Amino acid sequence: MKRRYLLLASALLATLGLTGCKEDKAPAQAGAAQADKVYHWKMVTAWPKNYPGLGTSAERLAERVNAMSNGRLSIKVYAAGELVPALEVFDAVSRGTAELGHGAAYYWKGKVSAAQFFTSVPFGLSTLEMNAWLNKGGGQALWDEAYAPFGIKPLAVGNSGMQMGGWFNKEINSLADLKGLKIRTPGLGGEVFSRLGAISVNMPGGEVFTALQTGAIDATDWVSPFNDQAFGLQQAAKYYYFPGWQEPQATLELLINQKAFDSLPADLQAILTEATRATSQDMLDDYTYHNALALDELKKSGTLLKRFPDDVLEAMQRESINVLGELAAENDLNGRIWASMQAFQALAGKMQDISEKELYNWR
Amino acid sequence: MKRRYLLLASALLATLGLTGCKEDKAPAQAGAAQADKVYHWKMVTAWPKNYPGLGTSAERLAERVNAMSNGRLSIKVYAAGELVPALEVFDAVSRGTAELGHGAAYYWKGKVSAAQFFTSVPFGLSTLEMNAWLNKGGGQALWDEAYAPFGIKPLAVGNSGMQMGGWFNKEINSLADLKGLKIRTPGLGGEVFSRLGAISVNMPGGEVFTALQTGAIDATDWVSPFNDQAFGLQQAAKYYYFPGWQEPQATLELLINQKAFDSLPADLQAILTEATRATSQDMLDDYTYHNALALDELKKSGTLLKRFPDDVLEAMQRESINVLGELAAENDLNGRIWASMQAFQALAGKMQDISEKELYNWR
Repeated sequence: MKRRYLLLASALLATLGLTGCKEDKAPAQAGAAQADKVYHWKMVTAWPKNYPGLGTSAERLAERVNAMSNGRLSIKVYAAGELVPALEVFDAVSRGTAELGHGAAYYWKGKVSAAQFFTSVPFGLSTLEMNAWLNKGGGQALWDEAYAPFGIKPLAVGNSGMQMGGWFNKEINSLADLKGLKIRTPGLGGEVFSRLGAISVNMPGGEVFTALQTGAIDATDWVSPFNDQAFGLQQAAKYYYFPGWQEPQATLELLINQKAFDSLPADLQAILTEATRATSQDMLDDYTYHNALALDELKKSGTLLKRFPDDVLEAMQRESINVLGELAAENDLNGRIWASMQAFQALAGKMQDISEKELYNWR
Repeated sequence: MKRRYLLLASALLATLGLTGCKEDKAPAQAGAAQADKVYHWKMVTAWPKNYPGLGTSAERLAERVNAMSNGRLSIKVYAAGELVPALEVFDAVSRGTAELGHGAAYYWKGKVSAAQFFTSVPFGLSTLEMNAWLNKGGGQALWDEAYAPFGIKPLAVGNSGMQMGGWFNKEINSLADLKGLKIRTPGLGGEVFSRLGAISVNMPGGEVFTALQTGAIDATDWVSPFNDQAFGLQQAAKYYYFPGWQEPQATLELLINQKAFDSLPADLQAILTEATRATSQDMLDDYTYHNALALDELKKSGTLLKRFPDDVLEAMQRESINVLGELAAENDLNGRIWASMQAFQALAGKMQDISEKELYNWR
């Protein structure tokens, strides 16, 4: 019965068409049925529930899309382990188990070697530069190419800005202090530490605090003051090292199942894309603001800030270049990505030398 | 007749309500009529037609809103002078002649003294910091307060990043070289130049090139390589000075007529707000990318880069603090804005010292 009323109403509306109402009616998109259809999507994430900055940013993306689409694209967010474990987010989106995934590209290095360039590169692009390279400098097309074989479209969905060097229970006064140091640092930074004689330890995030407190590891990197303070790492380690040479910025990633995306009407595609960009800016603001406050609180509560010595940083930079060169040599795509990033960094660095660098050195 | 069919159709749809359709139909928002209504808005801008970066960003905002709203919020963009002159954008939005305006806050200093804090502050917040302060640090609420008496809601709609010091036909080797220098620098920077003995000249943008070429002025600031190169200033002046101490970032502003905004349904309000944030990120990417390329081209084509001497920068910073202190003393709101900005800059600066500053100095 209801269906009959609906058909009748639709027929009546159709007879009205758009004539005489052109100024006041939205253009028909892909038929009334599609314009009314509600899409129920799943977003699997690599983060614990409500994890500050990262997890909350995923929730905010869903809220933005919901508000803009007036509920037509409804996204349910799953914390790591609720639907799939953190490290299976990529596969879940590729298979279509979830339409969206929220994580970091370097988690998928076992699937796509090129992914390692898209979170962060040691001594590489800064936050402003990475966003510019992805959006305007050809980076997005290379990222698309890397994930296309898996039916996934990636987008930058946030940036936590420059990281810290990490939490240490042993002082690093020279290269010799790295020998045998048990450190948990994922990604390219971990490889660099290994080459400098440290023992790179892999462990899930949930075990890091206890491992550091009991001495099972001597050091760990994490994120930056905002997250590190919330995680309580200041209670497990004495020294907080800088700079975060291993991650001069950290891009967060939205994985979109390409077929699901293609099935959306154009307005919902635009809403998802722009919501992702808006969320990206918002997350960066979150970290920039809360890092400043959290650093101040950490210092007041006794955390000791330490800078890596110059000769240690020089060795880290030398090994980083080696590691990145080897990664670039793995295949043609990796080579093109690294060449593009390096070319932009050379030009952008010259601009920073006379702008941001001058500002920070002067103030 | 058509209206009767529409009413009948609406009535039939209303009897259906949402029962039985909950999973597949978008929730009714504010009645079918409102959900279908097309809003035709005007956006007046302070920029010439298709002006790179600034004008194009206004166009892109309109395109984003159009795509996301499926044409329900249609924004027509007017270049400066097409509907109102550049410096009457604020009044036009306040009156409701246009629902939106696109410009820079310091243009309205004659109306709202506090506006001068919201474009840029000499030796003040950097790009990352300004975005964070506005979005998370209480800056937006202060900006809202400043414009509320005019019925206007402001939002950051872009940032052109850190500026250059400007184009000079005379070398600045000491403070003495500023005496009698005829320079066009609007805003707080111009006031600082005046106090250091320069002659601050006001002129419309369209006259700057000829004035510089003919020697009617000795120097001008403009934006940064991306815009300056497009404007051809390298053909009118010999020296390109850095750093852009007078504008360490430059926030672009969307002015929204509050009554018009309140009349929008919630989904279109969300679309406009998020499109503005997405456009803000996109404009910054545009400048970060194109500044790097344009600087390289300028250097190759013979532009001479010069740095202001330390004693000149010290004097500029001293006078900037005086000028800002006087501005802050003008009224209670100005005082609260300046206190809030300074407090955040003190904390954020400590974080930059161990992150971005280290990165740029090291690379």
